Amino acid sequence: MLDYKLLEALITVVETGGFERAGIALGLSQSAVSQRIKLLESRLGQPVLTRHPHLQATPAGRRLLNHAQQVQLLERDLRRQIPALSEDRTRLRIALNADSLATWWGDAVGAFCQEEGLLLDMVVEDQDVGLRRMREGDVAACLCSSDQPVAGGRCIALGEVPYRAWARDDYVRRYFPEGLTPAAFQEAPAIVFGPHDQLQHRFLAQCGYHGRFPYHLCPSSEGFIRLAMAGMGYGMIPDNMMGNHETTLTVPDGVLVDLSPGTTVTVPLYWHYWRHGGDFMERLTRRIETAAQRLLQPGNAR
Amino acid sequence: MLDYKLLEALITVVETGGFERAGIALGLSQSAVSQRIKLLESRLGQPVLTRHPHLQATPAGRRLLNHAQQVQLLERDLRRQIPALSEDRTRLRIALNADSLATWWGDAVGAFCQEEGLLLDMVVEDQDVGLRRMREGDVAACLCSSDQPVAGGRCIALGEVPYRAWARDDYVRRYFPEGLTPAAFQEAPAIVFGPHDQLQHRFLAQCGYHGRFPYHLCPSSEGFIRLAMAGMGYGMIPDNMMGNHETTLTVPDGVLVDLSPGTTVTVPLYWHYWRHGGDFMERLTRRIETAAQRLLQPGNAR
Repeated sequence: MLDYKLLEALITVVETGGFERAGIALGLSQSAVSQRIKLLESRLGQPVLTRHPHLQATPAGRRLLNHAQQVQLLERDLRRQIPALSEDRTRLRIALNADSLATWWGDAVGAFCQEEGLLLDMVVEDQDVGLRRMREGDVAACLCSSDQPVAGGRCIALGEVPYRAWARDDYVRRYFPEGLTPAAFQEAPAIVFGPHDQLQHRFLAQCGYHGRFPYHLCPSSEGFIRLAMAGMGYGMIPDNMMGNHETTLTVPDGVLVDLSPGTTVTVPLYWHYWRHGGDFMERLTRRIETAAQRLLQPGNAR
Repeated sequence: MLDYKLLEALITVVETGGFERAGIALGLSQSAVSQRIKLLESRLGQPVLTRHPHLQATPAGRRLLNHAQQVQLLERDLRRQIPALSEDRTRLRIALNADSLATWWGDAVGAFCQEEGLLLDMVVEDQDVGLRRMREGDVAACLCSSDQPVAGGRCIALGEVPYRAWARDDYVRRYFPEGLTPAAFQEAPAIVFGPHDQLQHRFLAQCGYHGRFPYHLCPSSEGFIRLAMAGMGYGMIPDNMMGNHETTLTVPDGVLVDLSPGTTVTVPLYWHYWRHGGDFMERLTRRIETAAQRLLQPGNAR
């Protein structure tokens, strides 16, 4: 077995952000914490923490932390069977897409976190990176659009999120005076989440346009609405952020309108988790499934 | 001089997300575009694009793109002096903090982008990474909390953003029944933006608490409010996201309250840009300065 005293020192240094604070938390001297980390590094033959510019785990340290989290999950199941074992908090690292975190995710997991004392360490990634992090053991679960399970993992269809294109009304009058013409799409700045975001391309293809278009890159869900409100462009915004059935939305100094009523691009969402995650992970999964039925549209895959 | 035809091919492949689309945009065959990229790579002795899992620029390719953007900026100034040169769009890559993008940034730059046909490529980073990207030539400007200019760069104080701690009213009753006691802070889950976010520590220090605390990690400005609304924790939210003078905010299924009225943590914001950015960058900078006077609190540094 690994020496979990050493792993606990690593967890605590990362969680508290310093050796002195970790010492206070563990009831040890700062130098005792430092010795445990050094011992861990000498056994491993490589550093587990970098000190500059920030104190943070190395990739090897990150894997140890994730392993320790999984052990804590299993301990959690054990404690339910043997209640005499003292209660403690569980921490779970999860990769998810930005729009889920900005919309329905909190509503889906909030009550579970409160009931179970679960703490979440959320990482925003697009799907390829999220699943790669899961394969590398960096996250315990991943919420994304891919239906391809990783080896050793389960993949559950949760439902779909519809997106529509929104812009300020005066932006639409300026850039689309004659409707959604190819000439207009060529000139009208779009707002795109990131270089791998295909939503905009899918929307334009549905509108029959396949050419080049100018765009801002804005990796922020809230920023999308702010830039659209500032008249900087049109962007694909999830219905659950805009009110599901509206085609206009009045904002403090203008009106946002659905650029192409009836044109919707849907994004499926899947929940990926490790099979050996234990009973706790199964319960979290069931809770997310149930919430998704309320918060997402049913998808074809479900 | 560099062969800008090759750089243009690289820019277009990255912007359109594919060789075929780049060919359409440039009026070239797909294989002609591919040949230009290969020629660029053979001159450079290293790849400028990676194909898997996504088509994206390598670090070397990214530097070429940034250089090409700076050249386009200078061309832009030249075109103002020689209007006969045909108009074209400028693209600018900027690193900024997530909360600015989610709040005042669009309002500050929206009109300028419309007037000048400027397209922004925004990268969300914490300040150390943002300034390192600027030093590495990956971004042309950086909005962050550091007042230390990079070599060759200018640094302008824009103002301050006040943050306060918010939570659901029933969360506060549950976790802080006897007020902001050390015992309560030790048990009440906080919501923290990322491992380098010091806002929470500064808030707790102002409350006289220096110990360990449980927390969720949530790298999303909008997610912060959603998780607080779901009763998952208390978090530091900028005043400009919550209404500047309120201490309660009614949300669809609950009430968010200021956990410690009167306790405010302020974050200064600075605008970093290259001295050789030319007249266009100077005008953008003046516009941001003017907007900041309206949208931010005056700071000590201004």
